[in-house]
Amino acid sequence: MNDIPLFGGIEAGGTKIVCASGTGPEDMNRAQFPSGSAPDAALAPVIRWLRCEEERRGRFRALGIGSFGPVGLDPHSPSYGRITTTPKEGWRNADILGTFRRAFPGIPIGFDTDVNAAAMGEHRWGAGRSLGDFVYITMGTGIGAGVMAGGKLLHGLVHPEAGHLRIPRLPGDAFPGICPFHGDCWEGLCSGPAILKRTGIPAEDLPGNHEAWPLTARYTAIALADLVCALSPRRIILGGSVPRAGLLGRDRFLAMVRNGVREALGGYISVPELSGDLSGYIIPPLLEENAGICGALALAETAWEEGRHPTDSRNDVSSR
Amino acid sequence: MNDIPLFGGIEAGGTKIVCASGTGPEDMNRAQFPSGSAPDAALAPVIRWLRCEEERRGRFRALGIGSFGPVGLDPHSPSYGRITTTPKEGWRNADILGTFRRAFPGIPIGFDTDVNAAAMGEHRWGAGRSLGDFVYITMGTGIGAGVMAGGKLLHGLVHPEAGHLRIPRLPGDAFPGICPFHGDCWEGLCSGPAILKRTGIPAEDLPGNHEAWPLTARYTAIALADLVCALSPRRIILGGSVPRAGLLGRDRFLAMVRNGVREALGGYISVPELSGDLSGYIIPPLLEENAGICGALALAETAWEEGRHPTDSRNDVSSR
Repeated sequence: MNDIPLFGGIEAGGTKIVCASGTGPEDMNRAQFPSGSAPDAALAPVIRWLRCEEERRGRFRALGIGSFGPVGLDPHSPSYGRITTTPKEGWRNADILGTFRRAFPGIPIGFDTDVNAAAMGEHRWGAGRSLGDFVYITMGTGIGAGVMAGGKLLHGLVHPEAGHLRIPRLPGDAFPGICPFHGDCWEGLCSGPAILKRTGIPAEDLPGNHEAWPLTARYTAIALADLVCALSPRRIILGGSVPRAGLLGRDRFLAMVRNGVREALGGYISVPELSGDLSGYIIPPLLEENAGICGALALAETAWEEGRHPTDSRNDVSSR
Repeated sequence: MNDIPLFGGIEAGGTKIVCASGTGPEDMNRAQFPSGSAPDAALAPVIRWLRCEEERRGRFRALGIGSFGPVGLDPHSPSYGRITTTPKEGWRNADILGTFRRAFPGIPIGFDTDVNAAAMGEHRWGAGRSLGDFVYITMGTGIGAGVMAGGKLLHGLVHPEAGHLRIPRLPGDAFPGICPFHGDCWEGLCSGPAILKRTGIPAEDLPGNHEAWPLTARYTAIALADLVCALSPRRIILGGSVPRAGLLGRDRFLAMVRNGVREALGGYISVPELSGDLSGYIIPPLLEENAGICGALALAETAWEEGRHPTDSRNDVSSR
């Protein structure tokens, strides 16, 4: 055990749970386990792994958890730290935070959405460094956004659910979408499962010249243009498995998305950042698939700092 | 002259310019002048009126300006305090802030969008009091949104331009919209001029049973649902002339919008605020048409406070 504070991080995703010990990307150990359909069975090996890390590296000062959702983020609500309305079998009302509180009593635990954690990771060490206003998007099994606004993660009433934006349909496209709540919202049209349903081919095997790519890119561009109108971000970080899936290549997918965003905005917002090819405005995550787990460590550090200097702005009356 | 600080406020709109002296809604004097097509000619009587108020009531400690836009809000840009890409004749590049700086030298001047000013007014004295996360919408000549996020007005790269959200079209509606940039964005479909173009009747004369009302309400509901997904506000304040126009009545328009928002969200975000009839979630402005000018006084007060205790978070490196 030494004087450098050690943190534990957990990134709970719909497919796998990643966990880590360390202080950031430089000194992080990580492991991953399948999520499965039983939260307790899925979290037990995570807890065992973290305890082994503590035995090897020293006690954690705090934990940070980024979880798939929707999750309860209001500390005054009984749903705080729980998954709420997920369609994922077995995980509805799963008490993620409570499970780790019982396993690691007495230390602060930061809790947020998986995408907010990833935004936090990119803010601290990646493509959102020193930017107070940006959006981190992940397109994979679902589509989600973590929003940094005025230097703070945006929560509001619950947390943004940008995957469920309703967007205009492209002429001639009759695919009904797969979102059980909304059908053809952005996630219903462009998530990995939506691409599989549309084409019969998993996104990662989709040929580079398949017509689903320009469709997916154009719908994504319209959704991003809507986020520009709603949030005025200084940058959009576009991560997840879909942009790098298949035989198209992420560079070409991002180029199609950037073209579509420029077209959708129609030159209305005339600033240098939104002119040209947008190659500095819509970018991939710098931490790649480690954004979320690094962000979980950053959430742990924030929880630790707040435990030492209690000024949690989320309990500030002006933010309620 | 007395010890209570006196402020001047200016709300520059596309049709009229409202100005006020005072500290808030309780002691405010106000006047209004047509915007016309020549900024200098339009602002001169505003400046004269404000100077008369100073002679009567004492010197202003600061001014606050809320302006129609898009406007430059980056203090480090040459476009700061100017209108940028407006389609409004004569006002492109108009130097609003500079005009008042020259007329009232030596006092701080707060500058923001008209809708951010209105959000500020409702935050300070109205329907957004003690809410750190809400959206103020105005639907009139244009559609705009002022966003409070984490207790601060959201600026980001420029400022939100929520009127230009692209939304799905309703089946059977072939109206192309009137936005010169986007055609059928929300503003292109639902602003006052859009309703006139669609129906041939000014919104204020539109019969209560005209089919344009449910269409306008449903498009507005989809746009608000998108803002819920992007921003997760704790409340939406829906102001402007369109909701209270015509022979329908604002209560019935708001009821149609609330129904549409509930339908568009499809029960996905399961919190009490978004259940039921949404009558506490989507509400009219409490300050009504005074939201913007009251907000301009609040912007003046903020500028004055920041002049005394310089901690402008917008100059904070973490917010850039």
